[in-house]
Amino acid sequence: MKLWGGRYEVETDNALHHLNRSILFDQRLWKVDLEGSIAWTRELRQAGYLSAEEVSALVEGLRAIMKEWEGGEFQVRESDEDIHSANERRLTELLGEVAGKLHTGRSRNDQVATDERLFLRTEVEQLQGEIRQLQAALIGQAEEGIDLILPGYTHLQQAQPIRWSHWLLQWVWMLERDRERISQAARRANLSPLGAGALAGHSLGADCESAASALGFEHIIPNSLDAVSDRDFILEILADAAILGTHLSRLAEDLILYSTREFGFVRLDPRFTTGSSIMPQKANPDALELARGKSGRLIGNLVTLLVTMKGLPSSYNKDLQEDKEPLLDTLDTLHALLPVLAALIGTLQPQGERMRAALDDALLATDLADYLVRRGLPFRQAHHAVGQAVAIAEKQGISLRELPLDYYQGLQENCDETLYELFDFERSVEGKSGGGGTGRAGVLAQLEAAKKLLE
Amino acid sequence: MKLWGGRYEVETDNALHHLNRSILFDQRLWKVDLEGSIAWTRELRQAGYLSAEEVSALVEGLRAIMKEWEGGEFQVRESDEDIHSANERRLTELLGEVAGKLHTGRSRNDQVATDERLFLRTEVEQLQGEIRQLQAALIGQAEEGIDLILPGYTHLQQAQPIRWSHWLLQWVWMLERDRERISQAARRANLSPLGAGALAGHSLGADCESAASALGFEHIIPNSLDAVSDRDFILEILADAAILGTHLSRLAEDLILYSTREFGFVRLDPRFTTGSSIMPQKANPDALELARGKSGRLIGNLVTLLVTMKGLPSSYNKDLQEDKEPLLDTLDTLHALLPVLAALIGTLQPQGERMRAALDDALLATDLADYLVRRGLPFRQAHHAVGQAVAIAEKQGISLRELPLDYYQGLQENCDETLYELFDFERSVEGKSGGGGTGRAGVLAQLEAAKKLLE
Amino acid sequence: MKLWGGRYEVETDNALHHLNRSILFDQRLWKVDLEGSIAWTRELRQAGYLSAEEVSALVEGLRAIMKEWEGGEFQVRESDEDIHSANERRLTELLGEVAGKLHTGRSRNDQVATDERLFLRTEVEQLQGEIRQLQAALIGQAEEGIDLILPGYTHLQQAQPIRWSHWLLQWVWMLERDRERISQAARRANLSPLGAGALAGHSLGADCESAASALGFEHIIPNSLDAVSDRDFILEILADAAILGTHLSRLAEDLILYSTREFGFVRLDPRFTTGSSIMPQKANPDALELARGKSGRLIGNLVTLLVTMKGLPSSYNKDLQEDKEPLLDTLDTLHALLPVLAALIGTLQPQGERMRAALDDALLATDLADYLVRRGLPFRQAHHAVGQAVAIAEKQGISLRELPLDYYQGLQENCDETLYELFDFERSVEGKSGGGGTGRAGVLAQLEAAKKLLE
Amino acid sequence: MKLWGGRYEVETDNALHHLNRSILFDQRLWKVDLEGSIAWTRELRQAGYLSAEEVSALVEGLRAIMKEWEGGEFQVRESDEDIHSANERRLTELLGEVAGKLHTGRSRNDQVATDERLFLRTEVEQLQGEIRQLQAALIGQAEEGIDLILPGYTHLQQAQPIRWSHWLLQWVWMLERDRERISQAARRANLSPLGAGALAGHSLGADCESAASALGFEHIIPNSLDAVSDRDFILEILADAAILGTHLSRLAEDLILYSTREFGFVRLDPRFTTGSSIMPQKANPDALELARGKSGRLIGNLVTLLVTMKGLPSSYNKDLQEDKEPLLDTLDTLHALLPVLAALIGTLQPQGERMRAALDDALLATDLADYLVRRGLPFRQAHHAVGQAVAIAEKQGISLRELPLDYYQGLQENCDETLYELFDFERSVEGKSGGGGTGRAGVLAQLEAAKKLLE
Repeated sequence: MKLWGGRYEVETDNALHHLNRSILFDQRLWKVDLEGSIAWTRELRQAGYLSAEEVSALVEGLRAIMKEWEGGEFQVRESDEDIHSANERRLTELLGEVAGKLHTGRSRNDQVATDERLFLRTEVEQLQGEIRQLQAALIGQAEEGIDLILPGYTHLQQAQPIRWSHWLLQWVWMLERDRERISQAARRANLSPLGAGALAGHSLGADCESAASALGFEHIIPNSLDAVSDRDFILEILADAAILGTHLSRLAEDLILYSTREFGFVRLDPRFTTGSSIMPQKANPDALELARGKSGRLIGNLVTLLVTMKGLPSSYNKDLQEDKEPLLDTLDTLHALLPVLAALIGTLQPQGERMRAALDDALLATDLADYLVRRGLPFRQAHHAVGQAVAIAEKQGISLRELPLDYYQGLQENCDETLYELFDFERSVEGKSGGGGTGRAGVLAQLEAAKKLLE
Repeated sequence: MKLWGGRYEVETDNALHHLNRSILFDQRLWKVDLEGSIAWTRELRQAGYLSAEEVSALVEGLRAIMKEWEGGEFQVRESDEDIHSANERRLTELLGEVAGKLHTGRSRNDQVATDERLFLRTEVEQLQGEIRQLQAALIGQAEEGIDLILPGYTHLQQAQPIRWSHWLLQWVWMLERDRERISQAARRANLSPLGAGALAGHSLGADCESAASALGFEHIIPNSLDAVSDRDFILEILADAAILGTHLSRLAEDLILYSTREFGFVRLDPRFTTGSSIMPQKANPDALELARGKSGRLIGNLVTLLVTMKGLPSSYNKDLQEDKEPLLDTLDTLHALLPVLAALIGTLQPQGERMRAALDDALLATDLADYLVRRGLPFRQAHHAVGQAVAIAEKQGISLRELPLDYYQGLQENCDETLYELFDFERSVEGKSGGGGTGRAGVLAQLEAAKKLLE
Repeated sequence: MKLWGGRYEVETDNALHHLNRSILFDQRLWKVDLEGSIAWTRELRQAGYLSAEEVSALVEGLRAIMKEWEGGEFQVRESDEDIHSANERRLTELLGEVAGKLHTGRSRNDQVATDERLFLRTEVEQLQGEIRQLQAALIGQAEEGIDLILPGYTHLQQAQPIRWSHWLLQWVWMLERDRERISQAARRANLSPLGAGALAGHSLGADCESAASALGFEHIIPNSLDAVSDRDFILEILADAAILGTHLSRLAEDLILYSTREFGFVRLDPRFTTGSSIMPQKANPDALELARGKSGRLIGNLVTLLVTMKGLPSSYNKDLQEDKEPLLDTLDTLHALLPVLAALIGTLQPQGERMRAALDDALLATDLADYLVRRGLPFRQAHHAVGQAVAIAEKQGISLRELPLDYYQGLQENCDETLYELFDFERSVEGKSGGGGTGRAGVLAQLEAAKKLLE
Repeated sequence: MKLWGGRYEVETDNALHHLNRSILFDQRLWKVDLEGSIAWTRELRQAGYLSAEEVSALVEGLRAIMKEWEGGEFQVRESDEDIHSANERRLTELLGEVAGKLHTGRSRNDQVATDERLFLRTEVEQLQGEIRQLQAALIGQAEEGIDLILPGYTHLQQAQPIRWSHWLLQWVWMLERDRERISQAARRANLSPLGAGALAGHSLGADCESAASALGFEHIIPNSLDAVSDRDFILEILADAAILGTHLSRLAEDLILYSTREFGFVRLDPRFTTGSSIMPQKANPDALELARGKSGRLIGNLVTLLVTMKGLPSSYNKDLQEDKEPLLDTLDTLHALLPVLAALIGTLQPQGERMRAALDDALLATDLADYLVRRGLPFRQAHHAVGQAVAIAEKQGISLRELPLDYYQGLQENCDETLYELFDFERSVEGKSGGGGTGRAGVLAQLEAAKKLLE
């Protein structure tokens, strides 16, 4: 059913009808569309546009349609433009003329904006749960892995030894920022456009706050022009998802590296690897690669809508119909990805021996410099001296701990045998107690703080 | 059917299976996948891996599957990962053990790259035809509208008068660049990855040039690592489509403006407008707005794949599976959009009277300055003098042609009555004969050149 | 001065030095870099690594360098890699060996992250002020323009009449969301990475909360790996700026349209237009076009950093150096753009007569449908009937108010002469009292609410 | 000097002047701007607008300004808007009134488009040379490294052994596609907008082909509206650079991995690594990380201009001024990056022993499957059988070559001792002779073909 057409003597071009038609993707909004309509019937009643009987009939009809959708029985017709007209068409089939009263004072412009905000609310709740799930998996591994030490990297070169739990917990904090951002965005989105009409508000003599409240919104949007064309709330979720996507891509990158034969710090549970069509030996980290690769679409979806919004005249323009597909794709991507990552992390097998075997004495060069500082050398000189020691050891094919004491005393004369106590990775890690560092006490405190986030 | 699994004792996690699964979108490649397999059987025959009977059986089986897809009868199974395994699974059902020989020396890595290049070839042909269709519609209007003159704008302020045909033809040239770019990209894509195997080539003792040639490729790709992970050909088409998208968005923007009540230079055929759900008077240019808005997804799809490719290790990575959806979406968007735009342009009703009524004398200010130049004033001074004249006329509420001769003689004393002959828009337009300008002869020549493009 | 090099026997390649060198842009951080160092001296003192005298000397030296920067006298040397090494090099020149103690326990990795967060804090404050300035200008115009009525548009087709103030206030709400987003991002950024060292924390035996607090941070960042590689706070500001950019581009688009000769609803103050090098009559809205066009770089800068972050291994990587230029460009763009827009809006001359002259009876079609609804026709039928009336009037070349009463009575028999009272734009606007609508009382309430935002 | 202003009584707002001003970046076009002006004087002479003396004077003046720029003596004034007005202002200072004749029939709109196309031409030549330089470095290493074998990876898991030269040559082909794309874009850009005037052409009575030809353009652009607002040539270069950027980021990613302690396949020359401010042992691959990270800005710059172009009205709009900064940044980025990468590759030290030590028997699993195929097993069954063998060997902690013959005969009874000849990486590599594979003969042929590209 078309919701318009009185002024037309000709049919819409068929190719345009198909270009225009959004029902194939916006049918995902069926439920919120019906909920919004139910709230609207009550608003119309209050304003005196519907009798109590009419409200009952309409609500019953709308609920019947909801059942049809729930049961998978709703029939989308070729002529249905979008979810709003499909639902109204069906209501007309069920109720006849009274269905035509439902659209009083309401436009598709405020209706679709209302639907989207309601839809987003549920989706965001699910998303937050999925993020928590991944945080929980990371925290679970961190609790078990507190004794494991592996090389920490900067520039992907061995830098300083760190705890495996420390590595795990970093992602929890990133994800927490994601959750906070999404939650603030959702709060900001929770205002009602219902009643803004096509662009200018409505003349029913009602303020729409009660419909807003019935739908769980905080208030109505103060300006009707803004109400019908604001898509900030989608842009913001897409931006938050793009940032989240960079986090997931980095987590994936690390784990892809760590599960190579060359690093070998983790094994993936075989249920989370896949094989090759030609190479029988392969166990590929597909899930992680997809987590890395799908950052592309999360960023691309954001760009899609930013470009669409750019330079649009104010108020409603048809271009805004392009907002739904990127939103749905981003949400679906995260809904599919996050649970797989949570399960993959939950079943990850850290390889403590490989981690320890990878630790090279050079990881302790900073500790050595710090030792010289404590013996009186300014840091910049100590740094330089240790740099030379590294070069010499490398040239001689020996390790830093194999350089003789007199070599070190040549750098700073009051060095003594205690210097060799430095060559202990556990001790090095324990020393890093400050600045959110990797010492056990600090990591345990971090762990406690992280667990509180999940409560 | 899984194409792998010998080394596995456990089943793939179900959520991962679904995350991984590409059959829902890559089934669009069914035809080229089967064609590629048919070519591969011949390569295997040549290399002595298949008997003539086995080739016959396999080709017959592959053709039978093709018929199933054509007839809409192919059943995708829940366990099918992608189009390649679906087709191979079906072949095994039809032929039994011999089906297992088809994959000899071939990996999904070279197979999917082959499929994509074959698929792109057909799609690009269709796309080129659609662009031509739009060019033809513009040229058709340009032929009819050669007498119409409207204000030309810079900064959306009236600048100089131009021919309607001149306005129309600019888009033909933009589209021609698009066509050329796409055509060069398609040519560059026309190399065969078949035989590159997983990454390192194959050991069948065949060079694969004959399979390449049978599939219409120019050559095989010289390096097998590049062959399995190059996605430049998709990036390039996405980039070309994004640029094309900016052209369409600009064409749409102009026509949206020109069809407002305020400009009124064109009317859209009612078949190409749509109404409002609440405002009975509306006839909205939805098709144009979508043409403008969909530039968002065309740009977003490009970004999606650029991001996915960024920083990937060489050779095949699962991330590459993310290449298909942006490509399909971009192609589908253009296939839907271009024909509608062609039809809309073809039925556009230029409003010559509104165009003429909009012409303001100030459009001739440059001609006036040129007149003063011809009377001896350096251009920069003439420009300044006419600027002042415009300001004075505006202040007096009169038009430039209403300023008295002695005013103009005050600017350059040898001005005479012939100055007033300037105030003729037709004459002004005719004067612009150089530099691809808007004079009739030039526009007619342009028209001829444009028509030649379509031959 | 290089901050490293002990292990090197050769000089860095010169071209690499230049590629690597960030001092040309990161010198913008000179002040916060010195402030961070001053805070760090106190932390080192507390941890017993510096004597009171050394602290005094260092602080005095750092303050002296600050003066040099303030006075434009600081000399950047060819060998300075970045702002951190430039400042440390200068400190060494001033103080000798003691300068080498400042870097104890601190890495450039935590230092640069600290600098950026401090820098952002000041920049965001300035930005918030600039947004307020633009809001104030809009509100100022809205207060003056409450009596002006112009056509409201959807799809850029005349839709319903609205108040000029209503149009103006929509932007205030968009900007308010921008401010809120930026403010939440800034709050989230206000944690201290100082003490995280290279990646693993430090071993000074201090917790760094006091340095954090001295620098005005809320807390230290809980995880040192996250501390050195988190760039969410920049991504988030870039995302907020990109969304803000879409708002500015839309505001600009409307005003570019409204200041055309064809719409004519506003005039720009001549101080905010520019002329043409060739067309003497032109007064171009360059400021608005730049506001529209610069949305490109605001979005591009966001993409730049999202791509850079994608797939990075955890902890610090040199790629992160790419974060500064997009941030600086985005901030500078907004600092330049917002004040010009505020001034342009503040001096805008609304053209009430042109607005009123543009109002067409068809803008009242919805009111007419609502009238029929109040007379008993279901809305959907009323909509259809009025659509036909519009078509008939158009065909007869008359206005809706010129259709005879019996025509309307044919639609709904109980229509009477009161129907013609509808054809009053003021009345129509007044009717739109609900849903954030355009009626005077509602707009005045909006205005009050908007003014409160500025307090 | 302002090139306009006659109609203005007030000064441009100072903040707008600064927002508008492009001289700070477009002064890079000084040379091509002057060259374009010289060509234009000749066109004006031909059309009779200048005497021979005036041409001489103007050309001499323009050459004098060129010398000033070359010598670094040109003084940019605060009031100079852009390079065009700066040069014209200076010409007026030098020559007085006759300078005012130069702008006859020419607008900044066609002038800037001409400048950009000329500028691009030189830049692209330089860029092509830099790409060749990198290709040459890769080819040089490939010639030397033909005997080295390393693990080839898919999904970053060991897949099949490959030659080091094969790995190196893949990048040559990618870069060759980049060169071809850029070269086609440059060719397409080589048309002259000069004479298109503000938007509508000019009325000098000349066709401008001779000016076009004097500047080395193929032809003039056929449509003046297109001539002044087409920025496809910039978009296309930005897109080509973005794709090139993905190649460089992938090359960098591989080398960053291969130069880790864990992989160890290559060492970077110390001149191409840098140290840490805190960790004395570090030798970081900064150049590679920047090559990876700068893909961000290459993609971001493309997005910037795509967004700016989106939805622009046809013909010139001020938004187009936003085209220069992304173009300059992209070109400068590549000019800085490519030579460093070429030098880094040229001095790369492949570690043959580490490569060989990394080769694991599982890399030969496909060869084993192929062996079984040659003994009569269909590939799919052979694949499955070898997969099980891998699992069993892994469980027993042995290598595939350590499984006894009767195990293999259990898979396919006609296996014999020759099976164990498979466990030879050299032999495996040699077998991959087809499909652009990694066998010596194939790689040598590739090498020859690659060297021909450089001729």
